Amino acid sequence: MGLSLSKHSMERVIAKAKEHGVGICSIRNSNHFGIAGYYAEMAARQDMIGVAMTNTAALGVPTFAREAAFGTNPIAFAVPGLEGKMFSLDMATTTVTRGKIEVSAREGKTLSPGWAVGTDGLVAGDPVKLLEDMLFKRGGGLLPLGGEGESMSGYKGYGLAVMVDILTALTSGGVFGGAVMDSEITAARVCHFFMALRIDLFRDPGEFKQDISRMLDELTALKPAEGAERVYYAGLKEQEAEKRCETAGVPLTDEVWKTLKETAEGLSLPVPAPRL
Amino acid sequence: MGLSLSKHSMERVIAKAKEHGVGICSIRNSNHFGIAGYYAEMAARQDMIGVAMTNTAALGVPTFAREAAFGTNPIAFAVPGLEGKMFSLDMATTTVTRGKIEVSAREGKTLSPGWAVGTDGLVAGDPVKLLEDMLFKRGGGLLPLGGEGESMSGYKGYGLAVMVDILTALTSGGVFGGAVMDSEITAARVCHFFMALRIDLFRDPGEFKQDISRMLDELTALKPAEGAERVYYAGLKEQEAEKRCETAGVPLTDEVWKTLKETAEGLSLPVPAPRL
Repeated sequence: MGLSLSKHSMERVIAKAKEHGVGICSIRNSNHFGIAGYYAEMAARQDMIGVAMTNTAALGVPTFAREAAFGTNPIAFAVPGLEGKMFSLDMATTTVTRGKIEVSAREGKTLSPGWAVGTDGLVAGDPVKLLEDMLFKRGGGLLPLGGEGESMSGYKGYGLAVMVDILTALTSGGVFGGAVMDSEITAARVCHFFMALRIDLFRDPGEFKQDISRMLDELTALKPAEGAERVYYAGLKEQEAEKRCETAGVPLTDEVWKTLKETAEGLSLPVPAPRL
Repeated sequence: MGLSLSKHSMERVIAKAKEHGVGICSIRNSNHFGIAGYYAEMAARQDMIGVAMTNTAALGVPTFAREAAFGTNPIAFAVPGLEGKMFSLDMATTTVTRGKIEVSAREGKTLSPGWAVGTDGLVAGDPVKLLEDMLFKRGGGLLPLGGEGESMSGYKGYGLAVMVDILTALTSGGVFGGAVMDSEITAARVCHFFMALRIDLFRDPGEFKQDISRMLDELTALKPAEGAERVYYAGLKEQEAEKRCETAGVPLTDEVWKTLKETAEGLSLPVPAPRL
């Protein structure tokens, strides 16, 4: 259970940081750990710099290659500002995740050029064919952040994805690269990396948080581009959505609600009335 | 002198890691520190994970904004493989650096769409106008890795650039964001971050390096995309160029050679004969 293991590990990493200034661990043979940013934010809420990463099943194709050799390998990084403000980056190192390809397939749309390549290693347009090629491991897959080839610097996203593989799997002696995949008898056996770093070893945490708040305020105060409404910083959209959910409830699709309801009934748990 | 200060700092960080497992420092009010990867590789050559970052003069425009609020803010990360092999990532978090815009201006080329925005915050094509707008701080500038808006995930490069600003300047109490710039009386007063992390605290360094070598071999053995020659990993091109220079000499433009010669003569130093 990646979720339970990861929460426990981040708690230990934070405890170690409290005692020694910094806490770091990596984990092998785990399972899907949920939201990377959740663990990084645990540290940020205790006046620490929080980092969380995981490797994932190989879906990403290196620059100039035609087959997958790394996952969407997310990086999460969080630091606190004043009064609950937080800079919280949580990003896949591929341009998009498989979810976006699936949405394009459902909506019958052509893929954007920087998202994926087909079995020939060139930009893929058809999401249905791509998903099939990926499923049957015929080649092709997601592009690293920066897209195809070198013109938009796709090798940088590729480099970041490999960095995540190194910090998670190579430090822990786990499975890496193209070998990370689900099989009929095992999950992908993914590896994680967690770090917490005490801010007070650098400077007064109050002053640090004041500067973070000033930085974030400066970013959102920037004049938007022609046609754009606002300038965000990492985590702001999610934080605003969280606040909306706290008052208005969590929006669920009919399908998700049905699954939750059936699961609850199967376990003889009370099902709350949905707000419609 | 950012170069001298940074070498000294990385040496101390490595010494601290030797004693305590991990060494970390950040520096404010510095100056251009040269090649970020140089410092990360210092740690990698001592069986450590090396990290180096710096913020730089604000040239990068946040997603949906129209003025610069962060620098090209490079991230360097290096780990050793066997027999001198090394994974060495050294990347600006903007899609390209100003140098590429200058080259396009000299060659009379139109800019690629993911590289920069003009004073309206929309994609810029004319490199001469862009450089002038940037010089006179009229707005516009370089795009973060991932390009304009959200379709290619430019907010991820933007997030990484801010992360570098936080680790370098916010931890050290230095200058950050749009305020990082050269003036008539000061340099940009940039800030750095260095980290070294001992591999033997995770696992046997010999086994780690063996796995790194295997990973890098697997990456270069991937079948290239249609029309591509080879698959690289971060640092490989530079390592091959270094080897070529060691035997064939370092190629210099006439202009650089002239400057070096004049500097040497001005200091009454002997000038070696160039290989032509």
